[in-house]
Amino acid sequence: MASSKVTPLSGFPELLPAERLLELHFLDTIREVFELHGFAPIETRAVEPVERLVGKGGDTDKEIYAVSRLAARGTDTEAELGLHFDLTVPFARYVLEHAGKLSFPFRRYQIQKVWRGERPQEGRFREFTQADIDVVDLGTLAPHFEAEMPLVIAEAFTRLPVGEFRIQVNNRKIPEGFYLGLGLSDVAGTLRIVDKLDKIGPANIVSLLIESGATQEQAEQCLALAGIRTDDTSFIEQVRALGVEHPTLDEGLAALAAVIETGRSVAPGTLVADLRIARGLDYYTGTVYETQIVGNEDWGSVCSGGRYDALASDGKVTYPGVGISIGVSRLVHLLISHRGLTATRSTPAAVLVAVTDEESRPRSTAIATVLRERGIPCEVAPKADRFGKQIRYADRRGIPYVWFAGARESESGERVDQVKDIRSGEQVDADAATWTCPPADLRPGIRVGE
Amino acid sequence: MASSKVTPLSGFPELLPAERLLELHFLDTIREVFELHGFAPIETRAVEPVERLVGKGGDTDKEIYAVSRLAARGTDTEAELGLHFDLTVPFARYVLEHAGKLSFPFRRYQIQKVWRGERPQEGRFREFTQADIDVVDLGTLAPHFEAEMPLVIAEAFTRLPVGEFRIQVNNRKIPEGFYLGLGLSDVAGTLRIVDKLDKIGPANIVSLLIESGATQEQAEQCLALAGIRTDDTSFIEQVRALGVEHPTLDEGLAALAAVIETGRSVAPGTLVADLRIARGLDYYTGTVYETQIVGNEDWGSVCSGGRYDALASDGKVTYPGVGISIGVSRLVHLLISHRGLTATRSTPAAVLVAVTDEESRPRSTAIATVLRERGIPCEVAPKADRFGKQIRYADRRGIPYVWFAGARESESGERVDQVKDIRSGEQVDADAATWTCPPADLRPGIRVGE
Repeated sequence: MASSKVTPLSGFPELLPAERLLELHFLDTIREVFELHGFAPIETRAVEPVERLVGKGGDTDKEIYAVSRLAARGTDTEAELGLHFDLTVPFARYVLEHAGKLSFPFRRYQIQKVWRGERPQEGRFREFTQADIDVVDLGTLAPHFEAEMPLVIAEAFTRLPVGEFRIQVNNRKIPEGFYLGLGLSDVAGTLRIVDKLDKIGPANIVSLLIESGATQEQAEQCLALAGIRTDDTSFIEQVRALGVEHPTLDEGLAALAAVIETGRSVAPGTLVADLRIARGLDYYTGTVYETQIVGNEDWGSVCSGGRYDALASDGKVTYPGVGISIGVSRLVHLLISHRGLTATRSTPAAVLVAVTDEESRPRSTAIATVLRERGIPCEVAPKADRFGKQIRYADRRGIPYVWFAGARESESGERVDQVKDIRSGEQVDADAATWTCPPADLRPGIRVGE
Repeated sequence: MASSKVTPLSGFPELLPAERLLELHFLDTIREVFELHGFAPIETRAVEPVERLVGKGGDTDKEIYAVSRLAARGTDTEAELGLHFDLTVPFARYVLEHAGKLSFPFRRYQIQKVWRGERPQEGRFREFTQADIDVVDLGTLAPHFEAEMPLVIAEAFTRLPVGEFRIQVNNRKIPEGFYLGLGLSDVAGTLRIVDKLDKIGPANIVSLLIESGATQEQAEQCLALAGIRTDDTSFIEQVRALGVEHPTLDEGLAALAAVIETGRSVAPGTLVADLRIARGLDYYTGTVYETQIVGNEDWGSVCSGGRYDALASDGKVTYPGVGISIGVSRLVHLLISHRGLTATRSTPAAVLVAVTDEESRPRSTAIATVLRERGIPCEVAPKADRFGKQIRYADRRGIPYVWFAGARESESGERVDQVKDIRSGEQVDADAATWTCPPADLRPGIRVGE
């Protein structure tokens, strides 16, 4: 059916089975943690009307993929559709569309593909999977949810083979109030400039700020604020020491202090108050989050989000929310290519049941059936073959055990099954109805490859 | 962010949380069975070059969704892309593209969304999830795989709340050899006519066959073959009794007998030899499968597939395969709307930890943390409130237990936690470190709704 010429599509990477097993380990772990915290699963359709996708700020408009029926092009009267580029925009629409059937506050998780027509580069794909949690309420949203979000993420990341990580938290009201208190009224413009600090360095930030109308002193104050970073609430004193005052600044400092305090009591050492974090998207209005893998800060944030006062509105009711999103594909691909992570085998099978001749296949199938009933994933050898070949077949896939039906004759003259651990070479008598697969071998493990 | 006017998109249905929990139960069960049988997971990108999607027979060309970057329309030099409409075409391409890194025979499962621009109607969607298994090999493929496929499906369906089901099996070589033996050389044309039997009835089939050049007797013989249906190998005698002979017919009968025999020994009563099953798609060359839910035969096949001698070819190597595909979204939507199936709750949380005043929230959070460490999904009440309100909150979501911190004073004057089963009203002392959640309540169950 598929014929010769196949060329990979740039920006649409695909994983080999062992790599996909690694990704599934990530997805399963993340989902388990989300469910332990009582987030309900939903999925939204992959497409939205284009007019709902455009105008969300940044470069997103240029990156939207339009979708139309090939046969109906040009003549179609259907609404113009586009593939969603994140899970927040479709979630907001889902909330409005189904509000009457949802209970608020509504806690949901959503793990799905999204598409962005970006210029492909390492860790930047045109199709990738995101894992999001959000809490959305009617009218007002309790502030404790802003402290909860990063703690759920911390729990997921602690269970994942990512090593040390750091969740950086800020509150948009801090720079907003600070800039206003300084006398800089173009808050968004100032934020946008300071956001480039990592890329262009402090000297250029100061020049740009002065260009946009700030004094030297104001520019330096902005830079000083962005430099504050503490793992406790001492950031408050450091901000106060800059001598700027504004009610919005006070609100922001109190809100951020609450998040950091809760973090310190529940998961010490994971949250950092980092007053440089701004997040590009315009809809954030309070707490914002970014997450870095320690030692690989150059990967950028692998999990980000924040609070929005108006996730959705139907004209009468406003739905404030707070959410955070893990860039799963990005993270997994980076771990594969930079840290050599992979699964210990390329199949879920823990056991290969050998077949010595085709006539005995039903016997091997029966053994496999018993093992599966007991929750042990296994495969029956595809071809009757010598023992050595069967072991090589298992070895190539990383299957740890090979089962030989009736491999040994007992003293009473009966044929006894044996199972071989092909890593150690140890071969022992076994009965499919009672043999225990070591729990560590039941599912593929994770290893650091060559 | 999302504003007022939201209208559902026809053909792109979305599930409410309790319904999505039902769907996840299906997806998890199917995946578990696939993994128990040693199928390795892969995912393919959602898009393929359009030229790879067109020309697969039937109405598929008209139903392809084309994808292009909104910003680059008309000016784009990128390959024209389309959303995949099944998982077989992309799998064939994946095999060719990654052949050097795969081990054959390659057993894979794939659970993903597909898109078809069909006219939306009940159980026919424009976006839906399929769950596929296939085995593909180099050059030749052992026939025992054709018997294995429906047995994996039977195991999955037995674990799912679908009631009685029937997997109908045929072998394309039977009608092919039979028609040739009868002297009808237009095999494809004859198949296409007989395939309409259910829709237009026997009299119309005979007329159409005669119109296409068959004699009355030949037409009646074709109809007689299509009427044969046995749950053992007695179909062979019934075919022989029609007095038609052809070597291809013999091959087909022997192959089908092998599948039915294996089925009877492993999963008695699930496989039926049904000589009418043809499957529309042109690439099937041997065994073909369809699956019906007993009592809801009008839903059509919910799981279909077959054998293809050339799934893919790179000019030098040919890859034969056999596979089967469950139409998960279709099945779940039909069960929801016709049998009222749903999950027993709209959240994964088994416990709501009550909060009596905002000052005691850290205490409730600490209890939740202990429960979660022990694998019990729970939610901390979003708002401090009276006991009755907390119970109503849990009840609305179907959460079976509400936990009250320090609800009772013990004789020694200590505060003791209590947990209430809100279904029975029973409230007992409990300690988060030792309380056992009844296994049936750990995850949402399935129930038949009103």
